[in-house]
Amino acid sequence: MNKGLGYINIGDAFDGFVLIKEANRGMASNGKPFLTLILRDSSGEIDAKLWDITKEDEQLFVAEQIVKLAGEINQFRGKAQLKILSLRPAQSTDDVHVTDFIEKAPVEKEALMEKLTEAIFEMKNPTMQRIVRAFVKRYQDALLTYPAATKNHHEYVSGLAHHVVSMIALAKELHKLYPQINKDLLYAGVILHDLGKLKELSGVITTSYTIEGKLLGHIPMMVEEIGHVARELQIEGEEVLILQHLVLSHHGKAEWGSPKPPMVREAELLHLIDLIDAKMNMLNRSLEKVKPGEFTERIFALDNRSFYKPLFEEQ
Amino acid sequence: MNKGLGYINIGDAFDGFVLIKEANRGMASNGKPFLTLILRDSSGEIDAKLWDITKEDEQLFVAEQIVKLAGEINQFRGKAQLKILSLRPAQSTDDVHVTDFIEKAPVEKEALMEKLTEAIFEMKNPTMQRIVRAFVKRYQDALLTYPAATKNHHEYVSGLAHHVVSMIALAKELHKLYPQINKDLLYAGVILHDLGKLKELSGVITTSYTIEGKLLGHIPMMVEEIGHVARELQIEGEEVLILQHLVLSHHGKAEWGSPKPPMVREAELLHLIDLIDAKMNMLNRSLEKVKPGEFTERIFALDNRSFYKPLFEEQ
Amino acid sequence: MNKGLGYINIGDAFDGFVLIKEANRGMASNGKPFLTLILRDSSGEIDAKLWDITKEDEQLFVAEQIVKLAGEINQFRGKAQLKILSLRPAQSTDDVHVTDFIEKAPVEKEALMEKLTEAIFEMKNPTMQRIVRAFVKRYQDALLTYPAATKNHHEYVSGLAHHVVSMIALAKELHKLYPQINKDLLYAGVILHDLGKLKELSGVITTSYTIEGKLLGHIPMMVEEIGHVARELQIEGEEVLILQHLVLSHHGKAEWGSPKPPMVREAELLHLIDLIDAKMNMLNRSLEKVKPGEFTERIFALDNRSFYKPLFEEQ
Amino acid sequence: MNKGLGYINIGDAFDGFVLIKEANRGMASNGKPFLTLILRDSSGEIDAKLWDITKEDEQLFVAEQIVKLAGEINQFRGKAQLKILSLRPAQSTDDVHVTDFIEKAPVEKEALMEKLTEAIFEMKNPTMQRIVRAFVKRYQDALLTYPAATKNHHEYVSGLAHHVVSMIALAKELHKLYPQINKDLLYAGVILHDLGKLKELSGVITTSYTIEGKLLGHIPMMVEEIGHVARELQIEGEEVLILQHLVLSHHGKAEWGSPKPPMVREAELLHLIDLIDAKMNMLNRSLEKVKPGEFTERIFALDNRSFYKPLFEEQ
Amino acid sequence: MNKGLGYINIGDAFDGFVLIKEANRGMASNGKPFLTLILRDSSGEIDAKLWDITKEDEQLFVAEQIVKLAGEINQFRGKAQLKILSLRPAQSTDDVHVTDFIEKAPVEKEALMEKLTEAIFEMKNPTMQRIVRAFVKRYQDALLTYPAATKNHHEYVSGLAHHVVSMIALAKELHKLYPQINKDLLYAGVILHDLGKLKELSGVITTSYTIEGKLLGHIPMMVEEIGHVARELQIEGEEVLILQHLVLSHHGKAEWGSPKPPMVREAELLHLIDLIDAKMNMLNRSLEKVKPGEFTERIFALDNRSFYKPLFEEQ
Amino acid sequence: MNKGLGYINIGDAFDGFVLIKEANRGMASNGKPFLTLILRDSSGEIDAKLWDITKEDEQLFVAEQIVKLAGEINQFRGKAQLKILSLRPAQSTDDVHVTDFIEKAPVEKEALMEKLTEAIFEMKNPTMQRIVRAFVKRYQDALLTYPAATKNHHEYVSGLAHHVVSMIALAKELHKLYPQINKDLLYAGVILHDLGKLKELSGVITTSYTIEGKLLGHIPMMVEEIGHVARELQIEGEEVLILQHLVLSHHGKAEWGSPKPPMVREAELLHLIDLIDAKMNMLNRSLEKVKPGEFTERIFALDNRSFYKPLFEEQ
Repeated sequence: MNKGLGYINIGDAFDGFVLIKEANRGMASNGKPFLTLILRDSSGEIDAKLWDITKEDEQLFVAEQIVKLAGEINQFRGKAQLKILSLRPAQSTDDVHVTDFIEKAPVEKEALMEKLTEAIFEMKNPTMQRIVRAFVKRYQDALLTYPAATKNHHEYVSGLAHHVVSMIALAKELHKLYPQINKDLLYAGVILHDLGKLKELSGVITTSYTIEGKLLGHIPMMVEEIGHVARELQIEGEEVLILQHLVLSHHGKAEWGSPKPPMVREAELLHLIDLIDAKMNMLNRSLEKVKPGEFTERIFALDNRSFYKPLFEEQ
Repeated sequence: MNKGLGYINIGDAFDGFVLIKEANRGMASNGKPFLTLILRDSSGEIDAKLWDITKEDEQLFVAEQIVKLAGEINQFRGKAQLKILSLRPAQSTDDVHVTDFIEKAPVEKEALMEKLTEAIFEMKNPTMQRIVRAFVKRYQDALLTYPAATKNHHEYVSGLAHHVVSMIALAKELHKLYPQINKDLLYAGVILHDLGKLKELSGVITTSYTIEGKLLGHIPMMVEEIGHVARELQIEGEEVLILQHLVLSHHGKAEWGSPKPPMVREAELLHLIDLIDAKMNMLNRSLEKVKPGEFTERIFALDNRSFYKPLFEEQ
Repeated sequence: MNKGLGYINIGDAFDGFVLIKEANRGMASNGKPFLTLILRDSSGEIDAKLWDITKEDEQLFVAEQIVKLAGEINQFRGKAQLKILSLRPAQSTDDVHVTDFIEKAPVEKEALMEKLTEAIFEMKNPTMQRIVRAFVKRYQDALLTYPAATKNHHEYVSGLAHHVVSMIALAKELHKLYPQINKDLLYAGVILHDLGKLKELSGVITTSYTIEGKLLGHIPMMVEEIGHVARELQIEGEEVLILQHLVLSHHGKAEWGSPKPPMVREAELLHLIDLIDAKMNMLNRSLEKVKPGEFTERIFALDNRSFYKPLFEEQ
Repeated sequence: MNKGLGYINIGDAFDGFVLIKEANRGMASNGKPFLTLILRDSSGEIDAKLWDITKEDEQLFVAEQIVKLAGEINQFRGKAQLKILSLRPAQSTDDVHVTDFIEKAPVEKEALMEKLTEAIFEMKNPTMQRIVRAFVKRYQDALLTYPAATKNHHEYVSGLAHHVVSMIALAKELHKLYPQINKDLLYAGVILHDLGKLKELSGVITTSYTIEGKLLGHIPMMVEEIGHVARELQIEGEEVLILQHLVLSHHGKAEWGSPKPPMVREAELLHLIDLIDAKMNMLNRSLEKVKPGEFTERIFALDNRSFYKPLFEEQ
Repeated sequence: MNKGLGYINIGDAFDGFVLIKEANRGMASNGKPFLTLILRDSSGEIDAKLWDITKEDEQLFVAEQIVKLAGEINQFRGKAQLKILSLRPAQSTDDVHVTDFIEKAPVEKEALMEKLTEAIFEMKNPTMQRIVRAFVKRYQDALLTYPAATKNHHEYVSGLAHHVVSMIALAKELHKLYPQINKDLLYAGVILHDLGKLKELSGVITTSYTIEGKLLGHIPMMVEEIGHVARELQIEGEEVLILQHLVLSHHGKAEWGSPKPPMVREAELLHLIDLIDAKMNMLNRSLEKVKPGEFTERIFALDNRSFYKPLFEEQ
Repeated sequence: MNKGLGYINIGDAFDGFVLIKEANRGMASNGKPFLTLILRDSSGEIDAKLWDITKEDEQLFVAEQIVKLAGEINQFRGKAQLKILSLRPAQSTDDVHVTDFIEKAPVEKEALMEKLTEAIFEMKNPTMQRIVRAFVKRYQDALLTYPAATKNHHEYVSGLAHHVVSMIALAKELHKLYPQINKDLLYAGVILHDLGKLKELSGVITTSYTIEGKLLGHIPMMVEEIGHVARELQIEGEEVLILQHLVLSHHGKAEWGSPKPPMVREAELLHLIDLIDAKMNMLNRSLEKVKPGEFTERIFALDNRSFYKPLFEEQ
């Protein structure tokens, strides 16, 4: 049986089902058309070329089509590329589904929802609890399926909820170690901080930025929406302002998209927790793909660094 | 008769009424208390010390008190300081008023309001016109009295409206030179861009930052409020989003407080017009105080540069 | 009839005359030679490949040759590329000329010269007027044909004069709004500021940098030449120094090529006017090519931003 | 009874024992000598002046002398200053000790040592355990008394051990949340990372930098010493290299003193844990001194930010 | 006879022996495999493609194989590329050797060693002399063959020793001009400063970074090793610390890899001498390849600048 | 006898002649006027206060007056300050002269001129030689007396010529080590590079910036003047351009005032030689004032670093 696309090496043969993520027509130097394909399964992606295509090929092999494929892994400009030896579209009898080929959070939606509900239940400040509850109710479906980003970290189905639930666990432990922390405020900040992404990003499968997302960004959109929700719930009091500040400042610096830096203890912590969970997600997933004694690929969002897995690590 | 405080030189005598802007008690090296005063009239400010004060002095000479004062201008650490020879509080018979000592825009409130009304009247896009009209109506009094900033440029009574009205004139001319510009959008952007300052700043006379202003800043506050107003007026359509973008991006760069840079033509222009009018305000007021052949004081908000007035300039 | 090259879309057919801007020989993977062509007309440029060429092809299809061509627009690495179906060199009977294929300012040379003459005539300071007049006389031909730059803004025939004349219009209006401005000085600065480019750049059609341009740059070259002209005209007085300062500082910052920042009011304004006119030129030409609801290509000289044309814009 | 110096406000009276931290002689403007004192107790510091001093005063009131003092708190240039009304050196009958006036970690040395021992005991990798044990044994006394820094965070007696023990707790919890973490490596990194400070800093009470500390810094000194210890223990294997890397990279960036950035998962985490614990230490100690609705003093090592304590916080 | 690869121009024919530095298999758009070769001789490198290869070709034409080759120089994407017309592996009868194709320092190893010995002999401080002598003895072979870097400057056989010996000559002259310099210290710094590269780099011919080199870097490794050598020689005294400081600070700034900047006169000089010799090496070798009136290729390590050779230069 | 002001320590008594460099009147907290004096001799400067002054004192103790003074050195805000015990103006019988109190280059003007003449004589390129000769002739007096800067390095009488002559010696040695250097070009660059300072600075004793110096700076002024001299001498050829480039680029980077970076080998070297000689001048003069085992004062122009003099240095 095949290893997933995220784990194959140069020289490996490959035989199995994959999903076409993108298909672009090109013209070869011999004047014949070809397709550049990006193929994926739930473990990773790979590029491939399909040479000398016919009109039918062009119509068959399009984005979101599942295909059965045999080939081998070559190297092209220092990157793996799949050389296609044979391919056909999947048929209903193959019993394969688009969702089989998309990366998902390692935790189920129901479990994520349960953790969220539990955290909200723990909160004692009624104002914060009401605001958070209103948001979770309003966005429950999207919150449980959206990725946390289009790339870099938690860029998979349910990625946003997975990120939030991990951060809640971190918040809980930090509160135990530093009891001065206002746990309700930190929980509320964690749950709300990235909800603006539900409007900034276009959806779950082929995620891009909405026009609103490009022109305003998720941070100001969420600050505004907290204002709307507070009006609807007829809530007043400093909680609204402080929650808006937590969302506004959670990128930490103006250069990173926060026009105000954290100026409340829990805002500073929210920024740090966000950072740790994003970094651990990237590090763990990259290191999982290499053996002891090797370096990972360069990780763009970690300053393009490559990480070493020491020889004494056992997988 | 005296020249105003903004125009006196080292060595000059001074005799007249001034307003105490700040009064702080200190302890001299001989163990006796004294007051450090910041005095102002409508042309400028100066520091002064009042030595060997009594309890009564402390109660008499406080912020916002007008005083009659005689003294001379000395130099202390390279800065002018007024040496007080005599002083007494102003009396009702003196017929002097706090507003006489505060700098005001060189244009009257009524004239500013007229220009604003005219600009709104010129607008053809009904959506933008309605939003702008709603804001001007809601904030009319504050808009006509607030300064545009606590320091640097247009930091005087009616400064904000003065700045806006100058920018409208600039916008009008630019539209003539570059007819591709959407004049309605640019006018709306000019009128709304800094209205968040009415909540960011504490008031007209001793202006400081509100807590909301410190934790959110005028830009996100105004983006949110445009959202509220649009909901109240039941307005939909891209105008709301684009106006929010103009406000959000008008500082030009993330480092300067705009989480998104201008991405609409009129947003770029709004940023440039804002810059020009602020710079001309600072330059003209500084150069007015020096003679041909001299350099101005360093102007902090112009990269701390000092400007030269050429010999061929006639005042 | 064809749309110009600047306006065609992927999938369009094309049939018409174009100018070869560059032709480079390559070797295909099948060992046969081919030509990489850059084709242009007055609206834009496109890349094309001519496969399996003969010796004759190599001699026929060279830079500055006009060709009649039929083809279609494909996409190659995310960029449009013209697939050539047939092509032949233009003949004298085709009645096409190199100048038909080169972008020109939207205003005629005569009209530009008239505006310049008018501005000089308006000047009252005789010293500045003499210097400006001497330069315009000396460089009249080049000034009316050179581009303002090799790329980014006003990079077309008569681009420099077009830029200068637009800036004069801006200067005139700013002077009305801020009467403290010395209009003569600002006009003189506008006319002289980029004249050094006539020596920095190699010419009008295939513009590159001269050795002098590379080793000194147009700013110090122009500062020096103002000195020479002043000596020739036996002019003394601060006007010469101040004009040199305006030229020297018009890029605004050391990092941008001005060893001194603006330190005279009109120097600051010259920098701002230059910026506005360059930005409006880039923005208007980019936005003209997209429809409402779309973003422009990234504009390198505007921090690589892409601009949105709102849906409420009508073309 | 008095509040500690860290908690007094302008206008308060003070009567009690304090320690002289620094005493500098100056010359007043009336030509008479005076002393500028920095006074401290275990909660904070304050400046004071002693005017018109005698030769005896100069000999009595020196650094590390305890004094009994009555006075009141004035403001001088925006900072609190103690006005001395009476003062005398402490006598043996007063039963006060230098150590009463020095800030100490809120945890006792024995408890800190116990936590350290426990952590080392938990380690399973024998190589790392041997190295860590050798260091703790060699430096036990200093490790349990040194501050973690001369200012900013954990700048008190036992500060270094307090910081290390807090970080161990953090490491333990993170390991539970992200089980991929190599806990032994992270523990070893935490314990060793700042031990170079025992040679970089001069001591516990009036802490300054040693010459070696200035010319090399604690990071390269500790990297070297790990090498020495490994040789002495005749240890080989990648553990030594990886531990050296953790120490070397724990400041995160070249600009912050780490010539290599973290390139091992636990190195990245060590940097993050260090950051969190340092920040929480500064934040909690600053916020403790203000009331709900107030901002703290600016905290230099947190980008000079001032933090707000929300109204809904109850102390 | 052929010019070397570093001196050939587009259009030249080439016929001679070269060494294969790298050989990578690719798949052409016609589905046939090909090899991308990097070929080198002692003067430079060039890329080449070998199309339609057989299995035998793949086995024959591998890295470190010498080949006899005829071809011509084309241009591909603005870079020279060799079009192979015929090629065969070198045979023993050809009497060519790998070392003939590798760039070497222009000075022989023996001469370099002699200069080093002479410098050490000149030193008067016995401590420094002992340390330097111990290092040169320990690493003599590697020191005389290693390059000074993998690219940029002195990236050839014996490059490190060549760099050191040039720097000694510079140090000697600077000491004459500025007699305050401690010549012994500067000599010792020059000889030791880059010795860590013997462990940071993998070897002489296909030089890459070792894991230790990547995780620690040559600077901290050498600081540590000076410590070890001092212990072995039982040396104490400030000389050890100061030598460690010279090595630690010789990159000049934290951003460039020196956690401490130079804080001793000779440390500052060491940094400057290192800079001058590296720059002269790059400049002279680049300028040698162009004619008067031309610019060199861009030199990456000189801020990507291109240098001009004036017309009045005669070669 | 006294040590010079540059060598005295806190606590020393002082009795001797000094020059008043600056005298500023202030008002003490007891209401009486005083003078803040900056006093200097040929070795350094010190601040002093003269309390309770009379009108006569104000007229006697002015800038450029020599005084006989007794006092002692105190510390004020961490800086040495002279406490004046007695003082009187110097009389003609004292036989002291202003020039006795001003720092001068350690080499006589005649010797400097001789070195310059010798260097010019060595030059073989007649064009460069003519240009250099014309400049030295035109500016001989100023060149031999001006400082090289107002502060930081060579800020003493004949400092410019001293700097130039040191740099010539460096250039000569570098040419021996790297014979590819064009010595004539480097010599010419060294002699001309800072001559613009003769117009940028106001004079020898109380040196400030001229208006021309502030608005243009010495670099563009000198580029222009090379152009004028070349015209007067009717010189054509690339030498003029290249010399202008050397002057233009000698600060190395746009941020440091060179709108073009060095793009000719000798331009790069000129920048490096300038740097070395300036740094050695600052370092040697600072280190001369401290003992082995001590750090110098922070040196502003060396990134505010403080340098250590090792214990093994013997003075």
